[in-house]
Amino acid sequence: MPLDPSRTVAELKELRELTGDENGAQRVAWTETWETARAWLRDKLSAVGAREQIDEAGNQWFTLAGESDRAVLIGGHIDSVPNGGWLDGALNVVAGAEVLRRIAEEGVPPVTIRVVNWADEEGARFGRSLFGSSAAAGSMRDQDQLRQLADAEGTSLPVALAEYGVDLERALDSRGQLESAAAYLELHIEQGPVLESLDLPLGVVLGTFGVERHRITWRGQAAHAGSTPMAVRRDALAGAAKLALEIREIAEQTGAGAVCTSGGVACKPGIVTSVVETAEQLLDQRHLDASMLASMLQAAKQASTRFAEEERLGVEWETIWSIEPILFDETLIDLCEEAITDVAGTCHRLPSGPLHDAAEVSRSGIPTVMLFVQSLRGLSHTKLEDTKEEHLELAVTALDRLTTKTIGWVASGGDPM
Amino acid sequence: MPLDPSRTVAELKELRELTGDENGAQRVAWTETWETARAWLRDKLSAVGAREQIDEAGNQWFTLAGESDRAVLIGGHIDSVPNGGWLDGALNVVAGAEVLRRIAEEGVPPVTIRVVNWADEEGARFGRSLFGSSAAAGSMRDQDQLRQLADAEGTSLPVALAEYGVDLERALDSRGQLESAAAYLELHIEQGPVLESLDLPLGVVLGTFGVERHRITWRGQAAHAGSTPMAVRRDALAGAAKLALEIREIAEQTGAGAVCTSGGVACKPGIVTSVVETAEQLLDQRHLDASMLASMLQAAKQASTRFAEEERLGVEWETIWSIEPILFDETLIDLCEEAITDVAGTCHRLPSGPLHDAAEVSRSGIPTVMLFVQSLRGLSHTKLEDTKEEHLELAVTALDRLTTKTIGWVASGGDPM
Repeated sequence: MPLDPSRTVAELKELRELTGDENGAQRVAWTETWETARAWLRDKLSAVGAREQIDEAGNQWFTLAGESDRAVLIGGHIDSVPNGGWLDGALNVVAGAEVLRRIAEEGVPPVTIRVVNWADEEGARFGRSLFGSSAAAGSMRDQDQLRQLADAEGTSLPVALAEYGVDLERALDSRGQLESAAAYLELHIEQGPVLESLDLPLGVVLGTFGVERHRITWRGQAAHAGSTPMAVRRDALAGAAKLALEIREIAEQTGAGAVCTSGGVACKPGIVTSVVETAEQLLDQRHLDASMLASMLQAAKQASTRFAEEERLGVEWETIWSIEPILFDETLIDLCEEAITDVAGTCHRLPSGPLHDAAEVSRSGIPTVMLFVQSLRGLSHTKLEDTKEEHLELAVTALDRLTTKTIGWVASGGDPM
Repeated sequence: MPLDPSRTVAELKELRELTGDENGAQRVAWTETWETARAWLRDKLSAVGAREQIDEAGNQWFTLAGESDRAVLIGGHIDSVPNGGWLDGALNVVAGAEVLRRIAEEGVPPVTIRVVNWADEEGARFGRSLFGSSAAAGSMRDQDQLRQLADAEGTSLPVALAEYGVDLERALDSRGQLESAAAYLELHIEQGPVLESLDLPLGVVLGTFGVERHRITWRGQAAHAGSTPMAVRRDALAGAAKLALEIREIAEQTGAGAVCTSGGVACKPGIVTSVVETAEQLLDQRHLDASMLASMLQAAKQASTRFAEEERLGVEWETIWSIEPILFDETLIDLCEEAITDVAGTCHRLPSGPLHDAAEVSRSGIPTVMLFVQSLRGLSHTKLEDTKEEHLELAVTALDRLTTKTIGWVASGGDPM
């Protein structure tokens, strides 16, 4: 049976019916609905002859043995956020299943082909995203924190995992799954507006942004809004306001896809009759180039020092979280660009703002690439998330072409393993 | 016995001992400590021969009958906020008591002299300030709301008032107290830094600021901090940030004591990974001149429209509260300036940012003036509130001089009654 991209669209709709409601997708990891989705995927692939396995971190693997043990991996995640979209994560595994079927139909492939459905990419129930992929990649180093996590009802993460056969203390044993991996491919909706604005269906992803996430505290002096002349005020909001505007200049001057966001300012005392004494400001900066990201952070810090002097404020920085940029494999980027150009006539190279399981796999040293398909209005994590069906079909075809090219590359020993 | 300003300082310290603790003054209206303070004041004036009366709104009056029923009033409030300062309100009544003693000593004055201790200026327990003075002035028109007010323990305002002999339904009957009033004088600490910055002990107050208090809601679009290019964002925080900075320019261009304050910005969703969708901004603008205040408001609204266009945001204005400027009596301002200059050698004219009982009295048509004494560091509503003792004594002397001048003016029929 040749590749049938329309079947992928039909199956995604079937999955939506089975695991969604009027509010959207409900495939939250470590819930019955998620288990229903995993069983559905198992059923879809039962006739293919691929061996199913749930590893120590709860990742679901389908392995089609090839002439070589060296494996080409196609990954995604069937879990969703609550009231989520029908495509985020699920597209990858359902498209991967279609590619696996096509390859199985043609006989034993030269290398092993594996589809992986990563466990709990979203972290929706316990707030810890990329669970399964970080375990398999060996980068999960927060077991002490994971043991303490609980959901909104107070159920602890270890207890919830145990209900699905996963022992947190053994999750890192899933590292064995990546030992034979020679390449990792992931298709995902863009979750942003870039491809739509360029009127392009598909793009090749260069890597995931490095992120600098900080909390900036401005300290001034509370003072009566009526009796305090303007000239003697020390207004913490003024520092935050200047920085909220300045980071946009910093992003523009940096260019090359740079983004800077101030997600909010919390003011104390925060009443209409007082000058703001303390303003806590959130800052998120992202770039694909580590040195440019460092420059953006430095520019923001320098600006904050300047504004603190101008406004006679104290200013303190506290790191919330940071991660370096993760660049995908250059050869696979080229192969992916070829595949997309074959299918769509043109291809755009773009970074990924959000993190993905592919970032964890790439960090572990396995040659990795992602391809993005256009998201309508850039919406995701909502039932409004959507992609044109013609674009979904093009995406399945492109993933199939990329898989074929990657098999050839791995079979010829072109990868660095 | 001649005027003894040092006695006022000593009595204020005595009152602090009696009604304060390590956290500051605790003379919250409609509490036992407040009642203790009222009884203390009664005791202090018992030998003067002034008739004491508690009116229908709980205001405490001490009347020294003169040759004429026409009365010069000296007002203040002995109530404080919780953990308040020793001077805010109490200075006025204790200094007024000293002036009353000095006048009584000299025989029957040509006009009647009355000291009034207004009930619940601060509104600390029920959130409704200027209770007693607004009742006596006849401007209390919120009885329906007052009936619904309750304190933090759930005790309703009418029940609390009844414990101190006040029937809310009859509070407006206290209007009779002002029928014979020919002038109203009030001494208060500045509660701001202006006199201290000018190195002056005393100033005459021109009136209380008009206030425009508004909530401004900026509406943009939530968007992923990683996947949304800068150019397509609609960031509600950008509108709020621009206006927070612009109102300072508006105040500066307006001049003449103009103040503009943005007391806070509340951001939604307010998370580090999202562009701000909604920003609710607080704005407070004050000026002594009604037309300038209106211009400042118009300038802020025009700026907000411009920023909304620049940032592709929605913007909505909602009035929280507003009050027109209340200008004090020009003749009394002149008399007060003379009295201060006599005592301190120089006098500064300044507006009052905060409201005071004097504003209620002035609104009712009675010639009114206030004098301010320097506040150290501009602090008030805290136990750190303080004024140099030499300045307190100068203030008592100036109030005494002003009272004498006002008695002469009223006795000569110079007032417009």
